[in-house]
Amino acid sequence: MIERITILGTGLLGTSVGMALRSAGFRGSIVGWNRSPAQAEAALSMGAVDSIATDALRAAREGQVVLLAVPIYATLDYMERLSGVLGSEHLVTDVGSTKAQIFAAAALLFNTPERAAFLPGHPMAGKERGGAELADPNLFRGAVWLFTDDRTWNRSQRSAELVKGWREWVGAMGSRTIDLDPARHDELVAWVSHLPQFVATALSALLEDEVGDASELKDVGGRGLREMTRLGASPWTMWRDIAYTNTEAVQAALLALEQRLAHIRENLRTPALRDEFEKANRFRRE
Amino acid sequence: MIERITILGTGLLGTSVGMALRSAGFRGSIVGWNRSPAQAEAALSMGAVDSIATDALRAAREGQVVLLAVPIYATLDYMERLSGVLGSEHLVTDVGSTKAQIFAAAALLFNTPERAAFLPGHPMAGKERGGAELADPNLFRGAVWLFTDDRTWNRSQRSAELVKGWREWVGAMGSRTIDLDPARHDELVAWVSHLPQFVATALSALLEDEVGDASELKDVGGRGLREMTRLGASPWTMWRDIAYTNTEAVQAALLALEQRLAHIRENLRTPALRDEFEKANRFRRE
Repeated sequence: MIERITILGTGLLGTSVGMALRSAGFRGSIVGWNRSPAQAEAALSMGAVDSIATDALRAAREGQVVLLAVPIYATLDYMERLSGVLGSEHLVTDVGSTKAQIFAAAALLFNTPERAAFLPGHPMAGKERGGAELADPNLFRGAVWLFTDDRTWNRSQRSAELVKGWREWVGAMGSRTIDLDPARHDELVAWVSHLPQFVATALSALLEDEVGDASELKDVGGRGLREMTRLGASPWTMWRDIAYTNTEAVQAALLALEQRLAHIRENLRTPALRDEFEKANRFRRE
Repeated sequence: MIERITILGTGLLGTSVGMALRSAGFRGSIVGWNRSPAQAEAALSMGAVDSIATDALRAAREGQVVLLAVPIYATLDYMERLSGVLGSEHLVTDVGSTKAQIFAAAALLFNTPERAAFLPGHPMAGKERGGAELADPNLFRGAVWLFTDDRTWNRSQRSAELVKGWREWVGAMGSRTIDLDPARHDELVAWVSHLPQFVATALSALLEDEVGDASELKDVGGRGLREMTRLGASPWTMWRDIAYTNTEAVQAALLALEQRLAHIRENLRTPALRDEFEKANRFRRE
């Protein structure tokens, strides 16, 4: 039923979606657009898209499903611009890492019988570095793809069918879908995604100060250190918008971890340390 | 030149050393002892040792090189007991994760012309769970094996040759050796090994409290979360002695990370966040 998909933003995620759709058997057209033409060319050469658009809005109008795979503020910006040019025969969906503001914009600008549908989405997959060159058709295999849809939205039948169709393609790409309330989404990802990122950044930055000049000692930490700092390679440009749009929840998570570390620091020689290890063991066992 | 090795403690590390020695071509005898006979049997069945001793001290006396692969306080305890029964024809070495106290005991109890040599060692390799069953002959391949030797120790020629021979076997097992002052060792591993462990424990314990009951959401975090909490599975029994024997350095590292996290928390919307990401990127680039 979905025959024409337009991907706005052919970075790591947008290009991986194109490749994953192809490898899941999607035979329709996939048009790609990227602010940087080189990234669009890379997506084309990797088979993620079969043509490159030079005008994002026109390409969106010519598709049925428009995937916004750009940073959060760019997503909000495109939502404004797309709501004026798309109609009830379109579905727009996204991959943004925070959902409260995108959900609010979706309620305001989309999801009436006359307008395009907007399905807020968030695949829990990525890499510590971005770019089309690192795209992977298996990126979404075994991952969770979150949606913060609203059952009360009154969509046209055509766009509602596109929503259903897109959910099926997400499953075909290998992801399990989970629907969450947007506020609960943002709180949850603050714990399980944003907190681990900021911890890895803090740990990496601290170690750069403490042992960064002792290059012969860089290998000493082994696998544990490599894993605990891998996300330290994530670029600020990817995380700036997340920090801005989920500030309160991330602050709460960071503060809670600071307190937990202080508790461990004060109990290195008491039985409370055992309690922390046992609780941590439990998290890994379940 | 080394023909008889006794491994006291056939857990993950002791058993892995036996297997690694065999796979590096060691053809002499390897005798194993473990407090729990089941772990000794496991080491035997995995080919790490070719016989099991029931008396640790007698087995040590019959070996040339005695590897102590037990927790830190057990290592200190065995050092006391071994110093009385071994002589200048023996080398004792260990795998303990902190070195200040073991180094002090080595200076006091070993390393004179009449006594056995003691070479304080620390392979930077392991797994989040212990036990002979998880042993791996390639565990030390590509790893760093730290020593906190002292060039002023006046050893017998025979035991000095065993020291040289053991260092060669460590290289043959695939590790790169680095010599450090014991105080510097303990400070360094507080940053690159102990801090990552306690952070993973704190993060895992915190997440157990926050999302532990939402089992359907456990997969949401994906690879990043799995890596950042893998060490959360480490058992307290492995880390209790480390926390006790490197308390000050670990406290300093934990406090520094708490401050770093607070700095990030207070700057989620300022350019200081970019500075932290860039510094973290630098750590991963080098």
